[in-house]
Amino acid sequence: MSEFDPSEHPHRRYNPLTGEHVLVSPHRTKRPWHGQSEASESSSLLQHDPACHLCPGNTRSGGHTNPRYSSTYTFSNDFPALLSPPIPVPPAAPHPLLQAAPLHGKCDVIIFHPRHDLSISRLSIPHIKHVIAEWTRIYITRGDEPGIAYVQIFENKGSIMGCSNPHPHGQVWSMSEVPSIPSTELMNLTKYRLSSPPASAAPLTTYGCPNLLLEYAFYELGITGDERRVVILNDHWMALVPWWAVWPFEVLVLPYRRHIPSLCQLTEEEVDAFADVLSRLTIKYDNLFETSFAYSMGIHQRPIPLPKDVNRDDQYPDAHLHLHFTPPLLRSATVRKFLVGFELMAEPQRDLTPEQAAQRLRAVSDVHYLNKTD
Amino acid sequence: MSEFDPSEHPHRRYNPLTGEHVLVSPHRTKRPWHGQSEASESSSLLQHDPACHLCPGNTRSGGHTNPRYSSTYTFSNDFPALLSPPIPVPPAAPHPLLQAAPLHGKCDVIIFHPRHDLSISRLSIPHIKHVIAEWTRIYITRGDEPGIAYVQIFENKGSIMGCSNPHPHGQVWSMSEVPSIPSTELMNLTKYRLSSPPASAAPLTTYGCPNLLLEYAFYELGITGDERRVVILNDHWMALVPWWAVWPFEVLVLPYRRHIPSLCQLTEEEVDAFADVLSRLTIKYDNLFETSFAYSMGIHQRPIPLPKDVNRDDQYPDAHLHLHFTPPLLRSATVRKFLVGFELMAEPQRDLTPEQAAQRLRAVSDVHYLNKTD
Ligand SMILES: O=P(O)(O)O[C@H]1O[C@H](CO)[C@@H](O)[C@H](O)[C@H]1O
Ligand SMILES: O=P(O)(O)O[C@H]1O[C@H](CO)[C@@H](O)[C@H](O)[C@H]1O
Repeated sequence: MSEFDPSEHPHRRYNPLTGEHVLVSPHRTKRPWHGQSEASESSSLLQHDPACHLCPGNTRSGGHTNPRYSSTYTFSNDFPALLSPPIPVPPAAPHPLLQAAPLHGKCDVIIFHPRHDLSISRLSIPHIKHVIAEWTRIYITRGDEPGIAYVQIFENKGSIMGCSNPHPHGQVWSMSEVPSIPSTELMNLTKYRLSSPPASAAPLTTYGCPNLLLEYAFYELGITGDERRVVILNDHWMALVPWWAVWPFEVLVLPYRRHIPSLCQLTEEEVDAFADVLSRLTIKYDNLFETSFAYSMGIHQRPIPLPKDVNRDDQYPDAHLHLHFTPPLLRSATVRKFLVGFELMAEPQRDLTPEQAAQRLRAVSDVHYLNKTD
Repeated sequence: MSEFDPSEHPHRRYNPLTGEHVLVSPHRTKRPWHGQSEASESSSLLQHDPACHLCPGNTRSGGHTNPRYSSTYTFSNDFPALLSPPIPVPPAAPHPLLQAAPLHGKCDVIIFHPRHDLSISRLSIPHIKHVIAEWTRIYITRGDEPGIAYVQIFENKGSIMGCSNPHPHGQVWSMSEVPSIPSTELMNLTKYRLSSPPASAAPLTTYGCPNLLLEYAFYELGITGDERRVVILNDHWMALVPWWAVWPFEVLVLPYRRHIPSLCQLTEEEVDAFADVLSRLTIKYDNLFETSFAYSMGIHQRPIPLPKDVNRDDQYPDAHLHLHFTPPLLRSATVRKFLVGFELMAEPQRDLTPEQAAQRLRAVSDVHYLNKTD
């Protein structure tokens, strides 16, 4: 029998952050594709679109008019998924199997730039730093409001990701509970600390403990050749296709030098490096299929409220800032991966190995194919 | 403060089968939709399409020629996600955070009917019974092969679900591990039994124990009026929008009269009633937006190997046969729900209540809008 070849032999990998498995079936990319093609993202957008409800000076669908902003601009979602208190509390469960819990919160929209035709991949580093500053501001502001337990910053980019407007923007949903996925991740980060993991030279947390993410990043630094999963590395941040990636070109972005619970703890140098990794990753994404690459992005960090004493965190000592990018494209600018059928009913399945994806992302240039514009 | 109104006030519901939450934000359907529209499913399909690789007598992409079958026809997927043993085993984990496990199995395709232009919604009851018989046969046959732990039967229907061919067909992936989702469900079914749930008049399992699914179905039988979540009820089967549904028109289908671990245990009468509920549900789906309604469907049942003594099941005494239908459409034949951004990074969110969805499905006719054809 031949030797195990991860790019030939189906196998299952384990995600220690979520506790879930992924079925890796790399030989599947050999099958011909007769399915749906996606529309290409339009590459001929106006710099200012009179019909866009996010452009400066235009009127939004809720009736408000945007100021003539020149950098980022944040407003409350006109159709929020969460409402502010007071909202009535659901009655006690009529049966133990039918549980409902109250929930309140706020939904914000952050416009990244006045230009309708840009995206993070085409913003200058100073501009990306404005976006990071705005994420940080809103994390603190919303986190200061009564009862907020989590500030979920995310971006849906591209019409195939359900984004209704190409104007560069993201969202922030702040809520009175820690949502399922970050909550599971935090639980697994704590489990890891408590599992007395093997000693390693990886950085410890501020509180002197091993950390799943810091340990994982440290291990990945040492991997070379075809096995390398790191896509971008700068002085403070790493972008890699994790061992357990589900989406074809899924990427995990994290600071790897020291323990950083949330956006608030970043030094100026770390912010610069953060802008650098975001710029290079989104450029590589666009270059991969020479299209404005669709994705969902989410920032995971410490829940709210922040600890009073920065030297002590009894509640979430294991939180470590990181971002997930989950782009749907698989084969080309118009052929995506569908996580359906088996994935919805049994478990996620991927068609190329994380190592193959990392290699392809490393191979593309980090100069944007349309050239950098400010 | 006003009273709690589930169709006005955002809240969170708990899914005891998977242990996950869903954020219910019903007022969100008020927002205008400017996002992507899906292509309508073609309604002018040929009865026999010379270009289709599933039609009788045609050649498949792998080079094989289909027989001139007249009922169902099953073959091995030409590009399977799983391979048969012997396949080499991944080496021991190079680090505890990078776990890989070996996995083997088989992938089958079941064609439901020779006619290219039909779907379950347009098959006669006798024909749907052929499909059920074929599902049962393959569950037994694949389950008899060495090392198989689970037989996952599913269907991806519609191009927006990544289905590459409208010819009515489903898939069966049989594998050497119980995949994540059924495995979590089985764990939660067992947890429920062990939690000493309150006494009830619901049917017990074959082994005299309470069962989460039988108890839940029994509770739903008693709900009337606007709160009713049951969509279809016949002598043996129930189709309902569960309390914890994620997809807009998600439906759970299950036998509710007695404990039935798998397809093998169905009596002839129960098979008739199964065909009836499948027919009526898929017709209602098509009628909802007058389109060939896309969905993923999966059958969850007892893992493999089946117990030697039918009166004793030490391994999976809590398994109860059920089907999940997860259709993506939300507002019309061309506007779907996108589970992206917040859903991928935080937790699923839905835009109408399960009760509203159930009401709309009950309200549509169970005679197909294109009329029944055999
Ligand atoms: O097997 P098919 O129909 O070619 O492929 C489809 O179903 C599979 C199983 O749900 C998915 O993994 C694929 O992404 C999807 O395109
Ligand atoms: O808020 P938007 O952009 O209108 O809506 C989009 O993002 C939301 C949050 O990820 C999703 O729930 C919606 O399905 C999607 O269409």
